[in-house]
Amino acid sequence: MLRRPLLLPLPSAATTCLHAVAGSRSQQSLQPMTRSAAAAAAAAAAGDSDGGVVPLPPKPRQTFSFCRMCGGPIELAMPEGDTLWRHVCQKCSFVDYQNPRLVVGVIVLHDGKVLLCRRGIEPQRGLWTVPAGYLECGESSAEGAARECLEEAGAHVEIDGPFCHYDIPAISQAYLLFRGRLAAPFTFAAQLPESLEARLFAPDQIPFDQLAFSSVSIALKSYLQDLSSGRTTVHHGVIQKAPGSSPNDPGSFRLVDSFELCGDAGVANGSAGS
Amino acid sequence: MLRRPLLLPLPSAATTCLHAVAGSRSQQSLQPMTRSAAAAAAAAAAGDSDGGVVPLPPKPRQTFSFCRMCGGPIELAMPEGDTLWRHVCQKCSFVDYQNPRLVVGVIVLHDGKVLLCRRGIEPQRGLWTVPAGYLECGESSAEGAARECLEEAGAHVEIDGPFCHYDIPAISQAYLLFRGRLAAPFTFAAQLPESLEARLFAPDQIPFDQLAFSSVSIALKSYLQDLSSGRTTVHHGVIQKAPGSSPNDPGSFRLVDSFELCGDAGVANGSAGS
Repeated sequence: MLRRPLLLPLPSAATTCLHAVAGSRSQQSLQPMTRSAAAAAAAAAAGDSDGGVVPLPPKPRQTFSFCRMCGGPIELAMPEGDTLWRHVCQKCSFVDYQNPRLVVGVIVLHDGKVLLCRRGIEPQRGLWTVPAGYLECGESSAEGAARECLEEAGAHVEIDGPFCHYDIPAISQAYLLFRGRLAAPFTFAAQLPESLEARLFAPDQIPFDQLAFSSVSIALKSYLQDLSSGRTTVHHGVIQKAPGSSPNDPGSFRLVDSFELCGDAGVANGSAGS
Repeated sequence: MLRRPLLLPLPSAATTCLHAVAGSRSQQSLQPMTRSAAAAAAAAAAGDSDGGVVPLPPKPRQTFSFCRMCGGPIELAMPEGDTLWRHVCQKCSFVDYQNPRLVVGVIVLHDGKVLLCRRGIEPQRGLWTVPAGYLECGESSAEGAARECLEEAGAHVEIDGPFCHYDIPAISQAYLLFRGRLAAPFTFAAQLPESLEARLFAPDQIPFDQLAFSSVSIALKSYLQDLSSGRTTVHHGVIQKAPGSSPNDPGSFRLVDSFELCGDAGVANGSAGS
């Protein structure tokens, strides 16, 4: 169970992030936000009798200026039935939604050692990490993790199963790392365009003071604990960055709402449909 | 372990999706694609001696036309060091990357019954699903799942832990569903803008022939199996749509590379950093 049950504030709360879509995304029209029908109905159903106006959430930074569809001017606005600021075209009303991205990677074990890469590109150039990167459209997360391992370490891997999922809300990313092993020909690259070097580290030699990302630090600590105890564990949690810290500061964070499932891993039926 | 170890093709294969980024995303320049330095180095490190030209992957459908940053014309092209087609501005060279989106939701249990909603919006209007929707920027996946439950079922929930992660490469989505329970005031809405109705179903009453999505069908079957056996399980897999089927056809799919971890769920340390 999560450490603290998640009880969201009702839609009348000033900080609510309730997002109610009354129609399909491309069909939404614009109008000044007061309180959406969906939010009001949800609140009423949940026992909230407040019928007042919802305070607007803080306006975020506008990250781009032009509409992808028609080239018209983009402004931050709230579509009808929404309670979040969106990038909305002032010419064709297209809503350009932004969503978190999934980073996939793999913790590779070989001869009792863990494969790490020293980053050759920004951010965090020169620091160590596990092979990982953005999931691409059209691939599964395990395929993406194996691809990143080939790109960043020049290594083929066998994926044994998921190891951890960590949300990082402050930078709108989720990290999904797998457990894996070096596959034939059991080699990796000394250097690659994305990596200054790649190296196998014994558990007591991992450079925890030179890791690139908080997610990698958390994952490797949990991985080593599992390795020493012989457990197979799936980890889940939320990485909260310390206020004022850089998104790339690997030392300023807390892991909250964390969950571990320890048990026996099995292969399910490979075909569950037709 | 996964059913089949994942061994990606080397970059010389015609169908490879290897993606090697030689610099930070915003700094990439454009040039005709032959074979990237990163791909060649990774292949050489992995024992691939082919030094030839990489066949281009099929050109996908261009999904938008204008640059978000400068309003210039967008065309599909391959940035230097890349092997995938990207939406690239012909005026300012901005690369508008597309990545899969994460759908989060919750399987809510109350009095031995599962809470389902009948969709009031497209796609799949009129069919049943668990409360779920796109993760928003700035929220954790559990927060997003709880928010969707409030929006689509008018219900507050307590999240007990992650239940499943299913990739759906054909539509570039990943489904992350949690296990949860109704929280005080233990009510839900009869109707909401996003849902024609919400209802609690006994396990043997779940309308499997009227479910909206393949992911929900797979998840509910696994959930009921766990419920009857008293297990706590984390599920992972890839949903492959049958060739030619609609992305929204809930009956034409296979679950592959599936993984189950059965064991005892525990709460980890709530603070793993500073």
